[in-house]
Amino acid sequence: MIFSSALLENAVNEFAKLPGIGKKTALRLVLHLMKKDISDVKNFSDAILKMREEIIFCNRCYNISDKSLCNICNDRLRQQHIICVVENIRDVIAIESTQQYNGLYHVLGGIISPLDGVGPDQLQIDSLIKRVTEEKTEELIFALSPNIQGDTTIFYISKKLKLQPIKITTIARGIAFGGELEYADEMTLARSIFNRIPVENYVKNNE
Amino acid sequence: MIFSSALLENAVNEFAKLPGIGKKTALRLVLHLMKKDISDVKNFSDAILKMREEIIFCNRCYNISDKSLCNICNDRLRQQHIICVVENIRDVIAIESTQQYNGLYHVLGGIISPLDGVGPDQLQIDSLIKRVTEEKTEELIFALSPNIQGDTTIFYISKKLKLQPIKITTIARGIAFGGELEYADEMTLARSIFNRIPVENYVKNNE
Repeated sequence: MIFSSALLENAVNEFAKLPGIGKKTALRLVLHLMKKDISDVKNFSDAILKMREEIIFCNRCYNISDKSLCNICNDRLRQQHIICVVENIRDVIAIESTQQYNGLYHVLGGIISPLDGVGPDQLQIDSLIKRVTEEKTEELIFALSPNIQGDTTIFYISKKLKLQPIKITTIARGIAFGGELEYADEMTLARSIFNRIPVENYVKNNE
Repeated sequence: MIFSSALLENAVNEFAKLPGIGKKTALRLVLHLMKKDISDVKNFSDAILKMREEIIFCNRCYNISDKSLCNICNDRLRQQHIICVVENIRDVIAIESTQQYNGLYHVLGGIISPLDGVGPDQLQIDSLIKRVTEEKTEELIFALSPNIQGDTTIFYISKKLKLQPIKITTIARGIAFGGELEYADEMTLARSIFNRIPVENYVKNNE
């Protein structure tokens, strides 16, 4: 792509560095911003730089936060003795968006994956063990990806907490709502039969 | 989507205002930028704001530019007496990227479209007529969209230039390279037969 303006070229190149955005999309976005008021573009540019400069990680749950303690940890109305263990911030946003969970979180920052060179030391596991002990947590809910790495992480942490009086659960795996039985993979279908639930519980949950 | 940080939420909302970018994509882009160095994010944010604040339109051809005369108009090696008339900046970039055209441009800023409320007065048509007269332009090449509005614009401008000693052409319409004849629409196919070219010209152009 050949530009008649260095300013335009710079802006397009910066946009094109973002994942999933090619040169043509970048140009479309830049031409869109060019038509906007300067104040709107300033808001856009400021919001992004400010986010990057000021955002920090919560000292307690390692979720991203504006302050040393995030909004969720700070919320005294939430159940303080239930911790949901997730891989990353995106998972916190996904669970929060369901508006069904009222406990706290702990963001590991990844899952144990020796093939990718990620061991327990690179994750927020020690801080989780320490936190569970100090805060007298009653329940730990694992909401990790349903794969070997996720299961390894669950087993590793559970083993470390063996001597603690704590209930450890994991989110249910099974056939998704609206999913067709015949298209489900064998593993999921097999597990969903093995972990079947009494219909009375099922009905109660859907009431 | 529920966020635990106002900084994050702001940045995501700003990204989601861009065309074709939803909340989920916006979040992905923001989380990508969060992992980058502050200096990289500053470059991104500065490039966009600077572009918006400093970009101007070329006084001669109305292309976007860093200075009052754009790089193309400033380039003395280009043919000064041929003007390619285009609808918008994107068309200039597309033609420049072919590296086959060595004349100047004139960006109309749209095409005549009464249904959308765009008349000749809203476009850079008067400035084109004035320019053609003053600069003693020898050829005007129309590179407008092949539709009714494009044709209307061509006829309108051609009529205004009736008394000028100027050659007026339009880019060739026909079957695209790599296009299958059987999938071409009737209008294009009919016109391409009507405007057929001698094989000797065709061979010469492809040498």
